[in-house]
Amino acid sequence: MRIAGTANLFSSRRPPPGARPGEFVVPADAHPTTIRAIAWDHERLDIHEIRSAEELQAITAAPGLTWIEVVGLGDGSVLNWIRDVLGVHPLAVADIANVPQRPKFEDYGDRDLLIAQHARILEDEGVELTQVSIVAGPDWVVSVLEDPCDLFEPLHERLRANAPIRRNGSAFLAYAMVDAVIDGYFPVIESLGELLEDLEEEIMDRPGRDALTRLHAVRRVLLTLHRTMWRQRDALGQILRGDGNPFGEEVRVYFRDAHDHSLQVLDAIESYREITVGLMDVYLSSISNRLNEVMKTLTIMATIFIPLTFIVGIYGMNFDHMPELRWRWGYFAVWGVMIAVSLTLLWWFRRRGWLGNDDDTKE
Amino acid sequence: MRIAGTANLFSSRRPPPGARPGEFVVPADAHPTTIRAIAWDHERLDIHEIRSAEELQAITAAPGLTWIEVVGLGDGSVLNWIRDVLGVHPLAVADIANVPQRPKFEDYGDRDLLIAQHARILEDEGVELTQVSIVAGPDWVVSVLEDPCDLFEPLHERLRANAPIRRNGSAFLAYAMVDAVIDGYFPVIESLGELLEDLEEEIMDRPGRDALTRLHAVRRVLLTLHRTMWRQRDALGQILRGDGNPFGEEVRVYFRDAHDHSLQVLDAIESYREITVGLMDVYLSSISNRLNEVMKTLTIMATIFIPLTFIVGIYGMNFDHMPELRWRWGYFAVWGVMIAVSLTLLWWFRRRGWLGNDDDTKE
Amino acid sequence: MRIAGTANLFSSRRPPPGARPGEFVVPADAHPTTIRAIAWDHERLDIHEIRSAEELQAITAAPGLTWIEVVGLGDGSVLNWIRDVLGVHPLAVADIANVPQRPKFEDYGDRDLLIAQHARILEDEGVELTQVSIVAGPDWVVSVLEDPCDLFEPLHERLRANAPIRRNGSAFLAYAMVDAVIDGYFPVIESLGELLEDLEEEIMDRPGRDALTRLHAVRRVLLTLHRTMWRQRDALGQILRGDGNPFGEEVRVYFRDAHDHSLQVLDAIESYREITVGLMDVYLSSISNRLNEVMKTLTIMATIFIPLTFIVGIYGMNFDHMPELRWRWGYFAVWGVMIAVSLTLLWWFRRRGWLGNDDDTKE
Amino acid sequence: MRIAGTANLFSSRRPPPGARPGEFVVPADAHPTTIRAIAWDHERLDIHEIRSAEELQAITAAPGLTWIEVVGLGDGSVLNWIRDVLGVHPLAVADIANVPQRPKFEDYGDRDLLIAQHARILEDEGVELTQVSIVAGPDWVVSVLEDPCDLFEPLHERLRANAPIRRNGSAFLAYAMVDAVIDGYFPVIESLGELLEDLEEEIMDRPGRDALTRLHAVRRVLLTLHRTMWRQRDALGQILRGDGNPFGEEVRVYFRDAHDHSLQVLDAIESYREITVGLMDVYLSSISNRLNEVMKTLTIMATIFIPLTFIVGIYGMNFDHMPELRWRWGYFAVWGVMIAVSLTLLWWFRRRGWLGNDDDTKE
Amino acid sequence: MRIAGTANLFSSRRPPPGARPGEFVVPADAHPTTIRAIAWDHERLDIHEIRSAEELQAITAAPGLTWIEVVGLGDGSVLNWIRDVLGVHPLAVADIANVPQRPKFEDYGDRDLLIAQHARILEDEGVELTQVSIVAGPDWVVSVLEDPCDLFEPLHERLRANAPIRRNGSAFLAYAMVDAVIDGYFPVIESLGELLEDLEEEIMDRPGRDALTRLHAVRRVLLTLHRTMWRQRDALGQILRGDGNPFGEEVRVYFRDAHDHSLQVLDAIESYREITVGLMDVYLSSISNRLNEVMKTLTIMATIFIPLTFIVGIYGMNFDHMPELRWRWGYFAVWGVMIAVSLTLLWWFRRRGWLGNDDDTKE
Repeated sequence: MRIAGTANLFSSRRPPPGARPGEFVVPADAHPTTIRAIAWDHERLDIHEIRSAEELQAITAAPGLTWIEVVGLGDGSVLNWIRDVLGVHPLAVADIANVPQRPKFEDYGDRDLLIAQHARILEDEGVELTQVSIVAGPDWVVSVLEDPCDLFEPLHERLRANAPIRRNGSAFLAYAMVDAVIDGYFPVIESLGELLEDLEEEIMDRPGRDALTRLHAVRRVLLTLHRTMWRQRDALGQILRGDGNPFGEEVRVYFRDAHDHSLQVLDAIESYREITVGLMDVYLSSISNRLNEVMKTLTIMATIFIPLTFIVGIYGMNFDHMPELRWRWGYFAVWGVMIAVSLTLLWWFRRRGWLGNDDDTKE
Repeated sequence: MRIAGTANLFSSRRPPPGARPGEFVVPADAHPTTIRAIAWDHERLDIHEIRSAEELQAITAAPGLTWIEVVGLGDGSVLNWIRDVLGVHPLAVADIANVPQRPKFEDYGDRDLLIAQHARILEDEGVELTQVSIVAGPDWVVSVLEDPCDLFEPLHERLRANAPIRRNGSAFLAYAMVDAVIDGYFPVIESLGELLEDLEEEIMDRPGRDALTRLHAVRRVLLTLHRTMWRQRDALGQILRGDGNPFGEEVRVYFRDAHDHSLQVLDAIESYREITVGLMDVYLSSISNRLNEVMKTLTIMATIFIPLTFIVGIYGMNFDHMPELRWRWGYFAVWGVMIAVSLTLLWWFRRRGWLGNDDDTKE
Repeated sequence: MRIAGTANLFSSRRPPPGARPGEFVVPADAHPTTIRAIAWDHERLDIHEIRSAEELQAITAAPGLTWIEVVGLGDGSVLNWIRDVLGVHPLAVADIANVPQRPKFEDYGDRDLLIAQHARILEDEGVELTQVSIVAGPDWVVSVLEDPCDLFEPLHERLRANAPIRRNGSAFLAYAMVDAVIDGYFPVIESLGELLEDLEEEIMDRPGRDALTRLHAVRRVLLTLHRTMWRQRDALGQILRGDGNPFGEEVRVYFRDAHDHSLQVLDAIESYREITVGLMDVYLSSISNRLNEVMKTLTIMATIFIPLTFIVGIYGMNFDHMPELRWRWGYFAVWGVMIAVSLTLLWWFRRRGWLGNDDDTKE
Repeated sequence: MRIAGTANLFSSRRPPPGARPGEFVVPADAHPTTIRAIAWDHERLDIHEIRSAEELQAITAAPGLTWIEVVGLGDGSVLNWIRDVLGVHPLAVADIANVPQRPKFEDYGDRDLLIAQHARILEDEGVELTQVSIVAGPDWVVSVLEDPCDLFEPLHERLRANAPIRRNGSAFLAYAMVDAVIDGYFPVIESLGELLEDLEEEIMDRPGRDALTRLHAVRRVLLTLHRTMWRQRDALGQILRGDGNPFGEEVRVYFRDAHDHSLQVLDAIESYREITVGLMDVYLSSISNRLNEVMKTLTIMATIFIPLTFIVGIYGMNFDHMPELRWRWGYFAVWGVMIAVSLTLLWWFRRRGWLGNDDDTKE
Repeated sequence: MRIAGTANLFSSRRPPPGARPGEFVVPADAHPTTIRAIAWDHERLDIHEIRSAEELQAITAAPGLTWIEVVGLGDGSVLNWIRDVLGVHPLAVADIANVPQRPKFEDYGDRDLLIAQHARILEDEGVELTQVSIVAGPDWVVSVLEDPCDLFEPLHERLRANAPIRRNGSAFLAYAMVDAVIDGYFPVIESLGELLEDLEEEIMDRPGRDALTRLHAVRRVLLTLHRTMWRQRDALGQILRGDGNPFGEEVRVYFRDAHDHSLQVLDAIESYREITVGLMDVYLSSISNRLNEVMKTLTIMATIFIPLTFIVGIYGMNFDHMPELRWRWGYFAVWGVMIAVSLTLLWWFRRRGWLGNDDDTKE
């Protein structure tokens, strides 16, 4: 899902109202599905491409922890395997398939569902959200990515490197995935910070329609990120508060750390939202200054020349008896009067601060 | 109830203040009432038109689950059958009859009342809400629709198709109805999204009174939908939290899914409300740009021609002694001066960015 | 208490700071007090005017339920009877006397105090609040109305008609009073809805100071009604949540219904408050449109005639050598030029949408 | 502490950061300290000036209730007596000395600290807050006033008059003090109400810089009062909720009454704050109306006279061949044309409502 | 971290997304690390520079309380000592290293982590935040300062002076550190108060772009301080509410005092934020007044001279038959008319309050 402009943000793929609960739709443009299993114990780490429900059944039945990694939602039968072979609740499978869903945690006994949204900044200043669905079973974890992305690369590394992650259970693996999603917001936040700095400069210098449109686009991106991260924080809070400790006490401290990171991201987003409010003020004030400047120019010109035009109008009258017209130096006297009037007005304008370099007229 | 414009939104049909609790009114313009019962067990599915309290009594007394489907509120005696034959509390019957009520869940022992509002988008961009009242009894469910609509068509299909819905109890049937109501908001939300896109374009291009009126109408629709869905979410949350599990543990997970959908709808509505706030900003900024543009035009014209008019005024004076008037090339010299003044002013305007294609003057 | 304009809303009658708790004041302009008792059991219903503490003592000592109806607060001794004969706490009596108090529920053992505010719309668009204080004792209920009004007329009817109200206890009677107060807000809300429709039309057509003043008056009324109803809802919520069920389980469902009605009133008031915010936007936009229109008129006139005036100024110059002045068709050529300039400018204005029927210039 | 303008509101007297907890400072401008004890039992009531720690020791050791009344904070040794002789916690003493503190309730075993702020309206529309610190011990109460004021006069009266206050314990005495502080806000609120009425009139009539400054000053006063009373309400709510009933059950009902009064004060303050928001709208709208009026005047004058000036300019041209100039009635015909043009424009202005007594131009 | 302008506020030093939990980065520009231990018991107080993990081990193993004071984050191995020798959780160490973190309290058994932000005002009106991390172990406390500063000077003094702080445990020492941080906000708040007073004067006198920029900078500083202190208050509240009293009952009253100080700081910050909102209003109103003033000047000049210019235009016409031109006193009569017109207009302007010293035109 891309966020930028007023795109129809919420057209999630979903069955028609009144459909059977647990139903899902596979849209034509969904990414083709690939599925593989990473299985390990203390010594070995095997990667299998999975081509049938039976293969999936065999691998999860073997001892050791298994990570079933699904990428792309184009193939409904794979989702049916997860439902039928792994015993995931149909409603959970529907939430995996009908993207986008709001980030959430749902407790289905020992098949807990965690939905998160991975954020990535695009080149045109938009942000792309990719749904990451995680089901943590007793000795396996299913991860489903809406579209291919390199989110889980570092986890693959750590598994290959035989890091502590390999000596922990499925709950820790689920945590590691969530942590990767949440930490992935930090670079996005930094890009938005740079974007706001650019924008501030542009609004100061050229406060036009274009700057306003960009400002609104950033506000919408921040709004969506805020809502998404807020939900993610809620889901993590639910895990922390959860009765019966869904993921066991020993990984609780790690989930608390992820929760803390989500709060940091929220703080940053909220600060940026306040900054956009300030930029809107600056924008309006710039527009207002420009109008003031235009009006001041008009007023100065008009106020100086309208009296002068009146004066020359007087001596354009055709009365038979206008003594000044006959005077030898009349014409030059009129010039003198006009120069005096102009200088008086200019002096008055300067005293009021309407001329020159005061703040208001600088651009 | 239609929402659009400032129609008197809240004139619910209700008895006068101080009336006996449980009293209800049947307004003259209410839709005539039809009532039928759909009864089934593992093998059969019968549909009966019901014409008397005795028929209703006989059908609900028979074994198996019964769905009593009432459409229209024009006939008070049908509501009295529900009160007297099925033992529904008079206050619940009054809430069914005195539409519109806020969506809510009320626990009356084993006759739980659920009130929801079905939303439908109209052709003129308004939204129509139809009250759906559900009473879930031990082995029957009463549904009352304020006006006829095709909300329950998919449920009829699923019942005829012998889907799982036929093998579940009254709580699941009540859930299926609520789910149909809530999922019915998604198409409404999508239509509003498209409407907002149109509106954004209109406000950018022709920011007039008409666009503002449409924007306000959309805001009111969003406000009402938000309030309604918020209440619906509350009612579902009450069922989820409910002490003693009003609907049993096994359908709880389905109600949680409906609760989750209501949150998705709320998210969408809130985003759209923020977008309307942004559009208001764009509108005000467009109006302001137009004023700036008008003032700039005036200023440019006046600032160029007022000095020129002054100059020609000078040589319209009738002094006897004005040496320039006698010069051979005086007239042409004046033209030269005037052209020079104009060009200087034009250059100055261009340097300040008041001419040409800067952002401010584009429409 | 009348609400409209900036009247000093909160000058409640109260003793000076530091006075003994439970003290109350009887202001000179308070309505004279009348007190009567309505006593009934299964068969009879008697109405007694009460003239002394002893009579009150005798009536409440008799078996059956008694409603002691006090109207007007002008006579402090009647309040003392309530304190001394019926054993109502002095603080409760002070709250009854020192009107207006905020709506509230206070549990004084088996002498529970309920304070509500009855709302009535006035002819000049203001709203009048009348304090209704209810003390529910074991087999009597005291109601105190600040001023005479017909709030309890329907209850008298129902009592005379031997309705179920006569077969219930003091808690149900207290409920019936509160219900009458809350349902009395619905007609007020409807009147305000009509008022807002009028106001919207006025603001569209004649957005002046007068419309703004009326809008602010409505906002203040809505603000006060919201605050009052919010407190009333709180008091009802307190009764519903109340530990030890102050009023017994069997009337709880009725108080829940009253609570639900208070929520409906609050929904309506909140919607109206949002509508007033929208009207403020429309008002500001109308003012802004009017300024735009004025400026556009000025700009069009000035922009057309300033260049023309310059042209005629040229040929008003008195140079000896101005060839055009001698041409045979010079005068008519100038007219041609001037008409061409005017038409060009008019065409340019029309192309920019400044002329004619675009939205901005329509009123 | 005075509130008005942007005075540095929060420069409380406090020791430097990092100082020992419980330290306090005695500023040079603090009011000199006086201390006296009022001791009573059923029969007698004695007032003692206290000059040493030993006297204090002796008086509190005697049977009966003692009120130790301290006024002014200029003498640190008196505060040390309270700490050392009465066993008040050093942190509590520091809060008494380092004024202003936020109103609060702190439970230190049987030496509970209550801090409140007494409000008094000043003649220049500011408000002065005086800290009132109360420590309720087992059979004594210490009250410390930051500055002398007549807050406790009515309590002295009631004690002298042998009112019920003399037959209650230290908790009731502490309540009576808090009640005096809270009821002291009612006259302040009333003064502010009158001030707002004045201000509204001024803003309607003369919406200048001065009115805006006064409006902002009132907003700041309301803001501070709101914050202060909010804290006071919190402190009272803490006493009401308090585990173990810090002050015993029998005075709980009195503290509930004080809590209710604090809610009434808060309601009033919040209403006034909403009214100031409305006044800001009125102010902006007045300013805007004035600009509209100025622009309309300009537009009417310019639009009438610019065409006329053009017309007279035409016949000021010096073409040899201008037939109209030779006509006998040419001059008068031009006058006719000019009058016709003026009347047409005036008619057009009137039709648009720009002339005369419509709302916009009224001041 | 400096706050002022739109600096990229949230670029905390952190490892890339997906890194192992507990990892931390040591940036090149971090301050070099110094570490020393202050150990004491009833009699002695020793200060040791620590150069190896073994020294740290030895000192903390000795009896008595030890304060391990780390300054600067340039040396990762010191942080590893803390993790490995003192048994601090790797996630806690990562929070110490990856500055800035939000202020928080995290319970890791008997190694509780407290993160706070020390605020210091800079000369250019910005504010600098320095992270202070505190880990309270059983008989030692680790403090880590991001950069050197004199925050803990007073504590050193008190330790040297054998103040009560030396006779309390590690919890009291941790409290003393937090108290120093929170009390350090008071001088910052006072400086901001003075800054706001300056700013108010500037906005009244010279409401230009520069004042607006400074106002926005102050708003951002206040926003960040508010957020930081809010989190600090939350962390203290968590300690106060904490199940199992993380720091023991006897220091709870001190933490409550620190919590109370944090509320005072928050009150001050919130008041200042409201004041900045008021200043924004004053700014906009000043800008608006200036535009009004400009327009009024233009209108007065134009309205007076445009009719006069028309009049003199009339008598510049060249009609053969214009009787007035031949009159003996025609010219002087025209002057009389013009003076009369001017005076009439001036009188009308004065009556409307457009001339002279009314509020609007004063600067």
